[in-house]
Amino acid sequence: MSIKVLGFAAESNTTPLAPYYFERRDLRPDDVLIDILYSGVCHSDLHQARNDWHGSQYPIVPGHEIVGRVVAVGNQVTKFQVGALVGVGCMVDSCRECSPCQHGLEQYCEEGCIQTYNGTDRHDHRPTYGGYSTRIVCSEDFVLSVPENLDIKAVPPLLCAGITTWSPLRHWNVGQGSKVAVIGLGGLGHMAIKLAHALGAEVTLFTRSLNKVEDAKRLGADHIVLSTDIEQMQAVQNHFDLIIDTVPNVHDINPYVPTLTLSGTLVFVGFLGELAPMINTVSLILGRRSIAGSAIGGIQETQELLDFCGEHQITADIEMIQMQEINEAFTRMEHSDVKYRFVIDMQSLKVTETV
Amino acid sequence: MSIKVLGFAAESNTTPLAPYYFERRDLRPDDVLIDILYSGVCHSDLHQARNDWHGSQYPIVPGHEIVGRVVAVGNQVTKFQVGALVGVGCMVDSCRECSPCQHGLEQYCEEGCIQTYNGTDRHDHRPTYGGYSTRIVCSEDFVLSVPENLDIKAVPPLLCAGITTWSPLRHWNVGQGSKVAVIGLGGLGHMAIKLAHALGAEVTLFTRSLNKVEDAKRLGADHIVLSTDIEQMQAVQNHFDLIIDTVPNVHDINPYVPTLTLSGTLVFVGFLGELAPMINTVSLILGRRSIAGSAIGGIQETQELLDFCGEHQITADIEMIQMQEINEAFTRMEHSDVKYRFVIDMQSLKVTETV
Repeated sequence: MSIKVLGFAAESNTTPLAPYYFERRDLRPDDVLIDILYSGVCHSDLHQARNDWHGSQYPIVPGHEIVGRVVAVGNQVTKFQVGALVGVGCMVDSCRECSPCQHGLEQYCEEGCIQTYNGTDRHDHRPTYGGYSTRIVCSEDFVLSVPENLDIKAVPPLLCAGITTWSPLRHWNVGQGSKVAVIGLGGLGHMAIKLAHALGAEVTLFTRSLNKVEDAKRLGADHIVLSTDIEQMQAVQNHFDLIIDTVPNVHDINPYVPTLTLSGTLVFVGFLGELAPMINTVSLILGRRSIAGSAIGGIQETQELLDFCGEHQITADIEMIQMQEINEAFTRMEHSDVKYRFVIDMQSLKVTETV
Repeated sequence: MSIKVLGFAAESNTTPLAPYYFERRDLRPDDVLIDILYSGVCHSDLHQARNDWHGSQYPIVPGHEIVGRVVAVGNQVTKFQVGALVGVGCMVDSCRECSPCQHGLEQYCEEGCIQTYNGTDRHDHRPTYGGYSTRIVCSEDFVLSVPENLDIKAVPPLLCAGITTWSPLRHWNVGQGSKVAVIGLGGLGHMAIKLAHALGAEVTLFTRSLNKVEDAKRLGADHIVLSTDIEQMQAVQNHFDLIIDTVPNVHDINPYVPTLTLSGTLVFVGFLGELAPMINTVSLILGRRSIAGSAIGGIQETQELLDFCGEHQITADIEMIQMQEINEAFTRMEHSDVKYRFVIDMQSLKVTETV
């Protein structure tokens, strides 16, 4: 027996996403069944649908920013009851035993965490399918509790864009009075500004385009620095404790490094690949500065983020779409034409399902 | 009035070092006059004598690993008395007021610390001259106390090679059970091994040459990994908390980054310049790893290092030379033909002085 589900899948790296019927596993003792209400659209959905990172296994049902309600629970589930408002992010499992897992950092699981889609289940070895679908089955240990007071349509991006910026903010101890800069104002960048601001930091956006100034201020940025303006860049030398670099494509970080204060860190969260041009070590050495990377966040810190967002009334800025508009949304996303995240109203797929 | 001194200087970037008479300032209230006994020979002496880093002002009297005895003190000096065994390292002054200075990290002074040679005194605006000379005048605040129980001939390298590796070991909290790797076995590398070992770390040397194995073990390395051996490199993936990269020339760090454990750091202490080939961010992101730089160390931590070395009977491995052999020593140093640091017996210069 298994659970029939309708999703949207890419059948190959050249075909658009289209309706796809598949089966979810029957509930294991620790599983919950979630009726998906909203699914966020992450840049990596596009990358994986098109096999930009290689390793895509088709069909792919993308989606790892999932919010919904529990509609059934396995007989050993203790954390959630039917009706609970919950989320699933980028992971649905991990080894749970290695040192990173034991420390609540399952994203760095030494055996590799199991991705919400394009992964392989550790038990039945079947492919995982994501949130562009009507329902999902997930171990309760990888399910998050979503505060009911939030506008839930705008919650899904917290589960990827949110946690990806929250985790480094917390790891590098950002708080009251910290000086944080954000490079890039997209899905990740707009969350980084909101969260750093809410943590009490002085927040600066580095941007190349003046037309982002107003929006950045509305989101919580205290200052905007035009990265193409030498004087503005000079004025922030030795300034930032942490720079969160959200830019998804290759770019020169050398101009930003000297804007870090002593022992400051620039952390990549958006770009996977070879840096160019080369990094000059001089500004690392003459300031004990660091260049680091950070991947999403652990389950514990994702729950912490959701609770924090509940307290501070923080959600993403979103544009709602129907499931059937996903291919157009992908195209618009490629042109950065979204403020700042598409979210799919999964009701649109359920209508299809009943037809 | 001023103090006449004999040194060895480079008059240009193409001339060998040769005897050079010059004057030290009369003692200010906080100054001590030091009779130099031994001077270490650092790779940067060679670089600056030849203007490899540009900015060299001739004549240059190199030398920033200085050990000697106090022979006179200014009238407000409180830390040292005549006869005290002391050291001077890479700095002789700083602004003393900025945040790094207030935190005992004068090497990162926001106005730039004053280098022991090829610098400009903050008060009289005269050039600074280093330890390849019979005597030096220095503010007591930049003079270190040297433990009398050490073999003082082998102490000078602690003041640059030692502190340059000690500072990152301490900053990144290396202690009992830490896993530390060292890349490169030269002046810096051999000190990194000794100090990390004495701090209780498990120490690994990365090397490309099997003939360094015995020496590395003698110095305190627990393991040696041939960086050209894929299997050996594979066996240390996710292993090290800290990698100290002492290599002075451009090299590929991509193979080393995945050997860092979660949240581990690779720190450059030897190479100033543009990295090549490019860094791939993937292994930074998928392990929250960092690449950092670190410059020498502050006065407070240099004193801490000297005290630690006194307690643990740690000095450098040196080869003693006469001042007149310095040009030959530079040539040998270029061919890495020294184990592991030349130290000049400054008595050899005093003989010249009296002739």
